[in-house]
Amino acid sequence: MPVATISWKNGKVRYIDQTLLPHKVKFVDCGDVKKLWSAIKRLEVRGAPAIGIAGALGVVLGTKDSKAKNSGQFLAEVKRTVKYLASARPTAVNLFWALERMECVAKTHNKLSFDKIKDILLAEALKILDEDKKACRRMAGYGAALVKNGDVILTHCNAGGLATADYGTALGVLFEAKRQGKRFSVYADETRPLLQGARLTTWELMHEKIDTTLICDNMAASLMAKGKIDKIFVGADRIARNGDAANKIGTYSLAVLAKHHNVPFYVVAPVSTFDLKIKSGKEIPIEERDGDEVRCILGKPIAPKNVKVYNPAFDVTPNELIAAIVTERGIFRKPYTKSLGKLKK
Amino acid sequence: MPVATISWKNGKVRYIDQTLLPHKVKFVDCGDVKKLWSAIKRLEVRGAPAIGIAGALGVVLGTKDSKAKNSGQFLAEVKRTVKYLASARPTAVNLFWALERMECVAKTHNKLSFDKIKDILLAEALKILDEDKKACRRMAGYGAALVKNGDVILTHCNAGGLATADYGTALGVLFEAKRQGKRFSVYADETRPLLQGARLTTWELMHEKIDTTLICDNMAASLMAKGKIDKIFVGADRIARNGDAANKIGTYSLAVLAKHHNVPFYVVAPVSTFDLKIKSGKEIPIEERDGDEVRCILGKPIAPKNVKVYNPAFDVTPNELIAAIVTERGIFRKPYTKSLGKLKK
Repeated sequence: MPVATISWKNGKVRYIDQTLLPHKVKFVDCGDVKKLWSAIKRLEVRGAPAIGIAGALGVVLGTKDSKAKNSGQFLAEVKRTVKYLASARPTAVNLFWALERMECVAKTHNKLSFDKIKDILLAEALKILDEDKKACRRMAGYGAALVKNGDVILTHCNAGGLATADYGTALGVLFEAKRQGKRFSVYADETRPLLQGARLTTWELMHEKIDTTLICDNMAASLMAKGKIDKIFVGADRIARNGDAANKIGTYSLAVLAKHHNVPFYVVAPVSTFDLKIKSGKEIPIEERDGDEVRCILGKPIAPKNVKVYNPAFDVTPNELIAAIVTERGIFRKPYTKSLGKLKK
Repeated sequence: MPVATISWKNGKVRYIDQTLLPHKVKFVDCGDVKKLWSAIKRLEVRGAPAIGIAGALGVVLGTKDSKAKNSGQFLAEVKRTVKYLASARPTAVNLFWALERMECVAKTHNKLSFDKIKDILLAEALKILDEDKKACRRMAGYGAALVKNGDVILTHCNAGGLATADYGTALGVLFEAKRQGKRFSVYADETRPLLQGARLTTWELMHEKIDTTLICDNMAASLMAKGKIDKIFVGADRIARNGDAANKIGTYSLAVLAKHHNVPFYVVAPVSTFDLKIKSGKEIPIEERDGDEVRCILGKPIAPKNVKVYNPAFDVTPNELIAAIVTERGIFRKPYTKSLGKLKK
């Protein structure tokens, strides 16, 4: 098992600074909500489920030293903290879902003493963390059935233990298939600009002794043309009610290529990643990040300094390109408007 | 106009070391065939037409200090040099085509004195260079007619002045359209692993004051989904008789995406890039390069040191995905087996 990406230790949030991987495994003990906000913004903590958990624990950090004089003031403080943490990143819905849960639990118990509410907030955050662990295992169980002996699997970005509290989503499926003794190999897209595939996914897969080959994002099509890819598994950052799924930039590209080459394209995500309030992927806000993420690699310029850059962090894969969505409540298939119709969070 | 990528100066091959761009414009005067071989291998000189010219000039370098005692020995020396230079890179056919011309001209004149043959070899190499210049201008003229006001154009890798003796192939089309006063903008794929798009294409386009935006390779699909790309122009390294075209890795990916989004996909290449001896792209050998090109960027590791890598330098786009092939002899369209049927080099 990969190390714990995010946990609660001695009144602080302990997380691995993922910007330093795979060269350095550095745990950070963070007791300050502003530092945690920045860790989410800078992708020191990343992956939709993991930033949901970070957000929930962030509410604990942001209110632990409250100077509120009455419950109204305390609740206002919770709301401010929630709003602040929600501003860190706009696309992954798990963050908003977890923050909403935290705000809701504070509201529900606002007649209790602040100390009691604080205890309840911490308990709720730890519950979110624990639920994610269990969801990972269940998704992995359902998804592993899709992996056959001899499969060559492609994945994009990092949907592993580093993106969650436990096993991961797409990679969790592979870890479980491996545990079951299945033989398969994996190609990992490097995933520009921030190279989560090269830095994190290969590291996790190799740790579990899974046969892993790194490629640049633009090489996947060539492998598919040669019939060398049997299945694609990716995670998601937000899934609309109709099954449209936002995920790391480059995912949509793979889904189109998969269709052209008749390769099944699977999304693996917990129910916390669904945004059941939106009808389609068109409503998903896509984060655009600083151009220097593209202009520079490891701090060194790779292009003219003043070149314009377009740097969307995510894209949306329309439901018709997704063969199945694997969740902790089972596998959903097309038509998604029907299969996801009764889903509740 | 971009600076001269490759030329003949004072008995040496003068070339820009493209591995240092865009940060440093360094001209190298190379009088040694082994050094030139290494420059081709290391992509200091790159681009199918440019390495054809480099190869031809390399034959001059490789035979200038000949110690042959008779014409048989001299011809054997030419052949050895040709074989040696041909081993630098396997995919772009321009190299083999230029080397074949050099060997042929040496054979034809093998009754003359060595000094005369050397003069003829140099004249032939300079003729190849000059023909490429003229071909660039003619391709640009034909291709510019395909560019309309308001177009947003996507290109991959570098098919500019740096890949040829003059204007470039795909970028030559854009330079000419700009010269004609057309208004359009360009997205340039960064083109991993060696980043020719980020380093070279943006530099050339910005030099000509063309509105240029840099993206990672995996972002192109997302732009197409939004209807933001009107046309794609790329170069080629080898085109089979049926129109199948090998080009920088990632080109095939774009062609599939273009088909899905109904975006016309154009290949621009001189006739020297056609390999009329092969029926289809299946016969094109694809160079696989060192895994460290993917594992490291600017010499720094971005992945676990021991991760396996697959690093093909090219892929093949099947003819049915190509809307037209622009050459110096006009624009060829589907079905290519018919339109290219009478083409001779």
